[in-house]
Amino acid sequence: MSGPRSGSVKHVTSTANPLMKAVRALHQRKARVESGLFLAEGHKLVIDALAAGWTPTMIVAMEPATAAVSELAARVRALGADVVFANAAVMEKVARRENPQTVIGVFEQHLADPAKMAEGTIIALEEPRDPGNVGTIIRTADALGAAGVILIGSSADPFGVEAVRATMGSIFHVPLARVEREDFVRFAARRAGPLIGTHLAGSVDIRTVEPSGSQILLMGTEQSGLTEELAARCDVLVRIPMAGKADSFNLAIATAIGLYELRRPTL
Amino acid sequence: MSGPRSGSVKHVTSTANPLMKAVRALHQRKARVESGLFLAEGHKLVIDALAAGWTPTMIVAMEPATAAVSELAARVRALGADVVFANAAVMEKVARRENPQTVIGVFEQHLADPAKMAEGTIIALEEPRDPGNVGTIIRTADALGAAGVILIGSSADPFGVEAVRATMGSIFHVPLARVEREDFVRFAARRAGPLIGTHLAGSVDIRTVEPSGSQILLMGTEQSGLTEELAARCDVLVRIPMAGKADSFNLAIATAIGLYELRRPTL
Repeated sequence: MSGPRSGSVKHVTSTANPLMKAVRALHQRKARVESGLFLAEGHKLVIDALAAGWTPTMIVAMEPATAAVSELAARVRALGADVVFANAAVMEKVARRENPQTVIGVFEQHLADPAKMAEGTIIALEEPRDPGNVGTIIRTADALGAAGVILIGSSADPFGVEAVRATMGSIFHVPLARVEREDFVRFAARRAGPLIGTHLAGSVDIRTVEPSGSQILLMGTEQSGLTEELAARCDVLVRIPMAGKADSFNLAIATAIGLYELRRPTL
Repeated sequence: MSGPRSGSVKHVTSTANPLMKAVRALHQRKARVESGLFLAEGHKLVIDALAAGWTPTMIVAMEPATAAVSELAARVRALGADVVFANAAVMEKVARRENPQTVIGVFEQHLADPAKMAEGTIIALEEPRDPGNVGTIIRTADALGAAGVILIGSSADPFGVEAVRATMGSIFHVPLARVEREDFVRFAARRAGPLIGTHLAGSVDIRTVEPSGSQILLMGTEQSGLTEELAARCDVLVRIPMAGKADSFNLAIATAIGLYELRRPTL
C-alpha cells in the first residue's frame, strides 16, 4: 500500500501572496467557520499534533529553515501536507505579530460527538465568552484526565488563535464538542452519571459529592453563572468552598478546582 | 475633629488635557513606577476599594454623570479625592478603549511587608511574567482566604491595568509584597511554617502534605518552573497529581489547585 501523496512545496516572499492572505484570515472567526480550518503556532505544537494523530493540511515554515524546521517540513510532506516556506516578513504578516514562531500549522477542525466520549468526567461550559478561559480549561481538562469538554450554545471559538495558544497543545488531546442547549440537556439525561452544576447558591459542598464514573461537571457563564434553565436540569448543584472577600472565582479557576475535587480520589 | 479637605472638581473636554495625559500614562509601567499610582477601572471596583479602606487620589468620571456616578463622586470628594468629570471622548482616551467604564479610579500603590502578613497560607511566585496570571492568582488567593501574595524578583507588575482587571477587586483585599530573591529566602527561613515548593519532579504528592498554620506555597516561573536556587530552599517539593497528556498546568491553575489542596481541610 502506498501512503498519501506527498504535499507540495512553495516558497513565498511577498506579503501580498493570496495563499498567505487566506492563512492570515484564519485569525478571524468568519474565515475559520467558512474553511473549517484553524491555526496552531509553533514547532512544538505541530509536533504535539502529529504525536496525537493530527496531520496539518499545510504548514508555513520560516525561511531560511533551521535543521529542525526542515526535518518537520519533510515529515509533514510525507503525510500529505503542503509546505510553504516564507521569509520573516511574510511570517510576521501571517502570524500577526512580531517575532513569530518558526512554524505555523493549518489544521482541520475536529469536533467530537458527546455520546461517543469515554467513561469519565466531562466538563460542560455554558456559553463561555473568553477564549483564554476556553483554552485554559481544555488544557486543564487534559492535565486532569477529563473525558472531554462540551461547549454549550454561543461560546468563544475554541479554534481561535488565542484559545488554541492557551491550550498549549491540549486542543489535540481532548475530545471537544459544541452543542446547542437542547442537545446538551438530552445528552446529559441519557448519560449514566449525574449532571453536577456549580452554583454560587449551590446547597451541596462539592467535597461531599460521591465520585461517579461518568459524571458531568457543568459550569455557568463568566458573567452570571448557570442559567436557571440549565440549573434546573442538574442532579445536584454544588458550591466550591470559599473564604475571604472575593465574590467568585475566575471561570477557568473554578472549573479546575471543581474538576480536581471530583477527580481527586482517583488521580 | 474635621475630616480631610474635600477634593477638587474639574471638568475636562479636551483629550489634550495634560492631567488626563498623565492619567492615561499610568497604562505604562514607567509612569506607574515614577508616580507610585495605578488605575482601577469601573464603578464597582472603586466601591470595592472604598469598602476595603482604599481612598483614590482621584477619580475620572463620565459626563454627563448618572445618579450613581454623581453619588460616588460626592463620596470620594468628601474623603479628599479629586474628581474630574470627562466626556466620552476623553474617557475613551484615558481608558485606551472603546466603551470605557463610567469611572476610573487613580490609587496609590500599597505593598505589604511579608513579615507582617497574618498567620495562614502565603502564596509566593517566582518571577511570574504574565499579568493576567498575576491578577488571577491575587483573585484566587482572596477567594480561598490566603494570608498574602509575594512576588519574587522581576515579575509582571500587579498594578498594571490588565493585572488589576483580572483581580476583579481583590487587589484591594489581599496583602501583596514584592521582594528580591535573597529577601524572600530570609523571610521564608524565619516564618514558622514550611516552605512548600511545587515542582514537576516533586517527590511528594501534595495531597499528603500535613496542613500547617503558616505555610508558604511557592510556585515557579511559567516557562520553566522553580529555579534550582529556590527549589533548594524548600522544606518539601510537592507535585500536583496529573493525568492525561498535558505537560503542565497554566501557572494560575496550578496555584489555585495547590492552594485549594492546602486549604481544603480548613475551608
